[in-house]
Amino acid sequence: MNTHEASDARPWDGLILGASLATLDGEGYGAVTDGALGWRDGVITYAGPRDGLPGEPDVLAPTVVEASGWITPGLVDCHTHLVFAGDRAREFEMRLEGASYEDIARAGGGIVSTVRAVREADADELLRQSLPRARALLRDGATTLEIKSGYGLDYDNERKMLQVARRVGEELGITVRTTYLAAHALPPDFADRPDAYIDAVIEWLPRLHADGLVDAVDAFCEGIGFSAAQTRRVFEAARALGLPVKLHADQLSDLGGGGLVAAFGGLSADHVEHTSIDSVRAMAASGAVAVLLPGAFHVLRETRLPPLEGFREHGVPMAVATDCNPGTSPLLSMRQAMQLACTHFRLTPEEALRGATVNAARALGLDDRGRLRAGLRADFVRWDVAHPAELGYWLGGELAASVHVDGRQVR
Amino acid sequence: MNTHEASDARPWDGLILGASLATLDGEGYGAVTDGALGWRDGVITYAGPRDGLPGEPDVLAPTVVEASGWITPGLVDCHTHLVFAGDRAREFEMRLEGASYEDIARAGGGIVSTVRAVREADADELLRQSLPRARALLRDGATTLEIKSGYGLDYDNERKMLQVARRVGEELGITVRTTYLAAHALPPDFADRPDAYIDAVIEWLPRLHADGLVDAVDAFCEGIGFSAAQTRRVFEAARALGLPVKLHADQLSDLGGGGLVAAFGGLSADHVEHTSIDSVRAMAASGAVAVLLPGAFHVLRETRLPPLEGFREHGVPMAVATDCNPGTSPLLSMRQAMQLACTHFRLTPEEALRGATVNAARALGLDDRGRLRAGLRADFVRWDVAHPAELGYWLGGELAASVHVDGRQVR
Ligand SMILES: [Zn+2]
Ligand SMILES: [Zn+2]
Repeated sequence: MNTHEASDARPWDGLILGASLATLDGEGYGAVTDGALGWRDGVITYAGPRDGLPGEPDVLAPTVVEASGWITPGLVDCHTHLVFAGDRAREFEMRLEGASYEDIARAGGGIVSTVRAVREADADELLRQSLPRARALLRDGATTLEIKSGYGLDYDNERKMLQVARRVGEELGITVRTTYLAAHALPPDFADRPDAYIDAVIEWLPRLHADGLVDAVDAFCEGIGFSAAQTRRVFEAARALGLPVKLHADQLSDLGGGGLVAAFGGLSADHVEHTSIDSVRAMAASGAVAVLLPGAFHVLRETRLPPLEGFREHGVPMAVATDCNPGTSPLLSMRQAMQLACTHFRLTPEEALRGATVNAARALGLDDRGRLRAGLRADFVRWDVAHPAELGYWLGGELAASVHVDGRQVR
Repeated sequence: MNTHEASDARPWDGLILGASLATLDGEGYGAVTDGALGWRDGVITYAGPRDGLPGEPDVLAPTVVEASGWITPGLVDCHTHLVFAGDRAREFEMRLEGASYEDIARAGGGIVSTVRAVREADADELLRQSLPRARALLRDGATTLEIKSGYGLDYDNERKMLQVARRVGEELGITVRTTYLAAHALPPDFADRPDAYIDAVIEWLPRLHADGLVDAVDAFCEGIGFSAAQTRRVFEAARALGLPVKLHADQLSDLGGGGLVAAFGGLSADHVEHTSIDSVRAMAASGAVAVLLPGAFHVLRETRLPPLEGFREHGVPMAVATDCNPGTSPLLSMRQAMQLACTHFRLTPEEALRGATVNAARALGLDDRGRLRAGLRADFVRWDVAHPAELGYWLGGELAASVHVDGRQVR
């Protein structure tokens, strides 16, 4: 028996040498040039300079690859609505042709058209329509996805959406975190009865949770959505089940959403364009993440920027996500979200990358990923770039040379 | 001998049935649902409704494909600087970190850094760095590319750039139209002597043209570029050789660039944010195309919109292009250019698609492409979309199911 067969002793299943690492561990990019990344059983066992490697790589690893470019942690898209059916491109077109929101509503458009399409599609059809979007995100480096319900708006269809979200994860072999967002919009059957609808939302939650379909609870707290008081009721129901909360907060106006998240020890406040400095302070104290969604900002041509200096000054971690949805953010790439965050919000490329990795993982309550460090999951991407700033710079193109989940190359 | 072998008689080498066509022929999309597209010897022989097909498709065509989605003409990117070397992502990052243009210049950034990198790279290296960008554009549906020189700024290096541009076309088997843009910036060796540099630019042109390297002539007419008088001299040199002209016109200020193009019967005025209504009228009269470049508008966060209503009212055709370049428009996808044109300039998706096909072909002086019509080149793309408006709607993702050049599937 020689050392090659002593597989129990080898420290890795795979090893990549020569690429630079953006570990996101510590300050800045946590850059390591001429790096080495090794993993075993789906977990990183070494991430550091090549010349710090223990042992002889050519003897100890079954798969040693010499590579160039940069390796980053797998990207984490912590806010998506990617499970949906139907098509809103025609509505996008109507708006550009000058149609008002009333015109679009009269033509059957708006969120109700997506609700109708989701209700009409069976689970297989919903999966069939949703998978290409998840695949597009994966192809561009996202190895963990959050997916919200919120287009079913009744028990059976919210359930169907959450089940389909789980199936997306199984089909692609990646982590999908589900979020219960029945409090997304008022369904037609509850017109003018928002409190009665919130009663129903609260009634459905424990049943869906009992079936393992809910990882977190969200609401759309806005003048055109649900009030802070209604949101609070949903959050209390989540707390009673031990489920973490997050919120569509302060996108179009300041309803104190950021502060509400903080008061419930929530994971994140998302959008946050109108978040007040008081809410920023409360978020900092509670440890909530500010999830920036530049896709909707871009498509809606918003001008009010989130309180970025406030987040920086008070140490609120900022994440970046696609908000992939058919109405306001038809975004199929985390890199494009990062580019829009750099352009519209003036994030630095390093902040955008941190927001798409470490801070996004934190916004999902996941502490096993988001950095390149021994002991964390071997979810990572090798990019054909000369500098990690390129990830926030290019629009379009394919930069991901390989995408790995649990060490396995999935792309 | 049966009919299958009577290949001389068959009207097509390939035939796609069932997809919808956006022919761009006539009004709007020129939509044909349940269409058929046939071609032979690289030329479209039929583009219309399936039930209007002459003959029995299953007998007459060697390759019959039943397909879904939409087929459009191959996209035409009529304004790129995609042949370059080196990297400006770090400069993008410095700007977001708060560096001034002076800081960046002091750090060796700006266009001079690209000029230096292009001069240092030999032709093979320049091709190696440029090809992935051209491939990215092709993958997302661009079957014709314009490529400018303008980072060499001396005879040998402008020549090298144009030769590499030609090689890009040969490598990918697509049409590349070359544009001589030596009057892009003042090279360091001619500091404070712009007229002497224009003398040199004019002297190099006939030599490069004699070698078949120049399809059109361009200049950067701007306060920070060359004056209208200098541009006029370059245009006169082009006219003497029978070469068409185009212009980087009125991007940051109104130097009458649009009018200058019109006066020379030029192909297009590009950027045109500050173009006056007088220039718009002159362009309409001369038939010049307005090439919109929303990538640079986006990255530079410009606010001044081109005179879109003027172009519409006076019938100036509008094209959309990537302006792919490392400094101001790191854009590797025509769809992303279309999305930015819809979002920032409020083009309708149909205007954006027309701008990426018919009008872009016209901006290159090519009348053999840009529509689906019998007799035109069989350059087309089949897209996995339910409506052509989706081409201006999504950011990211891969929508092109197949890309065809001369009928051949290249992707
Ligand atoms: Zn959302
Ligand atoms: Zn340009």
